[in-house]
Amino acid sequence: MHRSFGFTVLHRDKKTRARTGVIHTPHGDIQTPAFVPVGTQASVKSLTPDELTALGVELFFVNTYHMYLRPGIDVVKKFGGLHKFMDWNNPLITDSGGFQVFSLARGDTESSRPNLVKITDEGVEFRSHWDGSRHLFAPESSMEWQWQLGADIHIAFDDCTPYPVTHQQARLSMERTHRWASRCVAANAKCQMLHAKLGKPYQALYGSVQGSIYEDLRKESAEFIASLGFDGYAIGGVSVGENKREMTQVVSWVVPFLKEEKPRHLLGVGEIEDIFMLAEHGIDTFDCVQATRLARAGQLYITTKVKGKHEIDITKKVFSKDMKPIDEKCSCYACSHFSRAYIHHLFRVRELLAYRLASIHNICFVNQLVNTIRQAIARGSLLELKRQWLVQ
Amino acid sequence: MHRSFGFTVLHRDKKTRARTGVIHTPHGDIQTPAFVPVGTQASVKSLTPDELTALGVELFFVNTYHMYLRPGIDVVKKFGGLHKFMDWNNPLITDSGGFQVFSLARGDTESSRPNLVKITDEGVEFRSHWDGSRHLFAPESSMEWQWQLGADIHIAFDDCTPYPVTHQQARLSMERTHRWASRCVAANAKCQMLHAKLGKPYQALYGSVQGSIYEDLRKESAEFIASLGFDGYAIGGVSVGENKREMTQVVSWVVPFLKEEKPRHLLGVGEIEDIFMLAEHGIDTFDCVQATRLARAGQLYITTKVKGKHEIDITKKVFSKDMKPIDEKCSCYACSHFSRAYIHHLFRVRELLAYRLASIHNICFVNQLVNTIRQAIARGSLLELKRQWLVQ
Repeated sequence: MHRSFGFTVLHRDKKTRARTGVIHTPHGDIQTPAFVPVGTQASVKSLTPDELTALGVELFFVNTYHMYLRPGIDVVKKFGGLHKFMDWNNPLITDSGGFQVFSLARGDTESSRPNLVKITDEGVEFRSHWDGSRHLFAPESSMEWQWQLGADIHIAFDDCTPYPVTHQQARLSMERTHRWASRCVAANAKCQMLHAKLGKPYQALYGSVQGSIYEDLRKESAEFIASLGFDGYAIGGVSVGENKREMTQVVSWVVPFLKEEKPRHLLGVGEIEDIFMLAEHGIDTFDCVQATRLARAGQLYITTKVKGKHEIDITKKVFSKDMKPIDEKCSCYACSHFSRAYIHHLFRVRELLAYRLASIHNICFVNQLVNTIRQAIARGSLLELKRQWLVQ
Repeated sequence: MHRSFGFTVLHRDKKTRARTGVIHTPHGDIQTPAFVPVGTQASVKSLTPDELTALGVELFFVNTYHMYLRPGIDVVKKFGGLHKFMDWNNPLITDSGGFQVFSLARGDTESSRPNLVKITDEGVEFRSHWDGSRHLFAPESSMEWQWQLGADIHIAFDDCTPYPVTHQQARLSMERTHRWASRCVAANAKCQMLHAKLGKPYQALYGSVQGSIYEDLRKESAEFIASLGFDGYAIGGVSVGENKREMTQVVSWVVPFLKEEKPRHLLGVGEIEDIFMLAEHGIDTFDCVQATRLARAGQLYITTKVKGKHEIDITKKVFSKDMKPIDEKCSCYACSHFSRAYIHHLFRVRELLAYRLASIHNICFVNQLVNTIRQAIARGSLLELKRQWLVQ
């Protein structure tokens, strides 16, 4: 229907909203549910594209804001898009750039200079602290840049609601998101026509659902976004809260209003303890930096909980002579070749290989877990698997 | 003869001292001449053992001093040696630890505290600046530790002569090196007996030649070291000088006094412009951190000189849109998958993958050059190849 983009649901769990499926894109298929590692700056830190593929990664997430700043959209455009630039020949997803510019505007990051940023209905304007030059992130420019980056899946430019926020503020932010969603649809149609003439493959667009932690707004947003004919949906503004209960509620409110036959992406969520919840509530893909960020800090995932956690801190002295692999049930390259003692040593002396082996392990671990969940959904035993996993 | 250690000369160049050969060790063969990358802390920075093997690396160099401090000899011993600890199943060489403790004693490094170090005929004693504990590096302890690290080739503990130095000081230092060489031979024989009883394979010992830049001393040292029945020779104290002419002289004085049927290692030398000289003078193996250190600074080797150098600085803006590989004649993973622009981007945003791709390229480049030199020696065309290479 959409020339090389589509979604097929394969199995539905009877007791929950969980489902398995396949997202079809011009660069290949994605088995869902799927964990999506983040390569913010066109690289999943320390790993090659080949390694990601070997780890079972089928979808790669890149941040448009970072690409805009460095290397610059024009550089990537010269290569015909990110796929060629970073040698990733499988499905790719970019975000709108909104999350980062709003973080900048609200002073969420260290480098933020709120006075340099202006948010209006037009979009988000900021001045570079390098050279004072003016930059505008708006629905139209976000669409244009994402088409030039050439990912298989784009995300609509939304007003990223801060947290916490009053109901009134959340409504205003959501309404702007909806106005921008309509502008994204229009801008995207133009881009698509233009690029189709150049012989470029279809690039899908997901609409963003906002509404903070308010049930009425989330439902209204989901219903509105679902009405605009997007190829799929991204649920935004969930990762900013700290509260897992709120996150679960938001997802449970939103999903029933989205079209069943379209894929649903959850932005910025995917810690080990979240993954069952996401699957249960019918989330198909989710990106999260947590697995790789924890890895680089020496926090490595393990199957059997220790002190209530699915993690060990490999930098601790207790591992200095430990001849076991990170996780005895893991088949990743790090676990099948190296001991905890060696990886502990690499971390202690700050060898680059440490970050790499740790990243390989954590990504593999999450992918193995998601695979198991996928199989359990297909067999109708998801809740059983969840109980086993939580009881451990 | 020596149970799994030996050296076979395959071809000799008629016009120079160059030769090709094979060093046989319990963990496999090394084609010579060979470049030996350095994994100071039991890791060639950013790379896995598998990658090194894929790059054609047959011998891996680890520093005993660093292993002594971290992870500690006892940790490696628990694993039965460095091979298992770091998952390297091919030939391995360790140094004596002397170079680092002497650098410490002489204040060559930032962290040095000369008052904490005492050099006597017994050995080099230093107190840890962590806990004040006493540590002695001596011929006997160096031999013992290297046996526990379990490399295929060890190096005798020598008095590392500083540079520059008077003839008188150089003589005293050389004489101590000779006394220590005899003690190393004795200590090594004991270790060997002990470890043979435990069923461990033979571990070869190379004697160290010193003598600074003085012809008489270098010849005397080479002759003396050659008389002690070592399995091979290491030429030390060459990398500390800045002068390439002096380096060439030293090598040319020493080599004729070493036994022809035994392998010769040059410690700490191997920049691109040195490699032809080493081969011509009959050096069989050489370790050097330069290829990997330059790589991490963005200095990448190229076949055809630019501005008189076999290097480009990939961090320069001129490469920001360059779609060519680092070196069009190179077949490494970095060159066959990525552009200069992408690697430039990774360096600019300090992505870990930058250091890795750069290291892969530079090691591959040196190995390709050494392979070409090996083939030229076999064909009798070494000097021709050198002329072509230098003329470029």
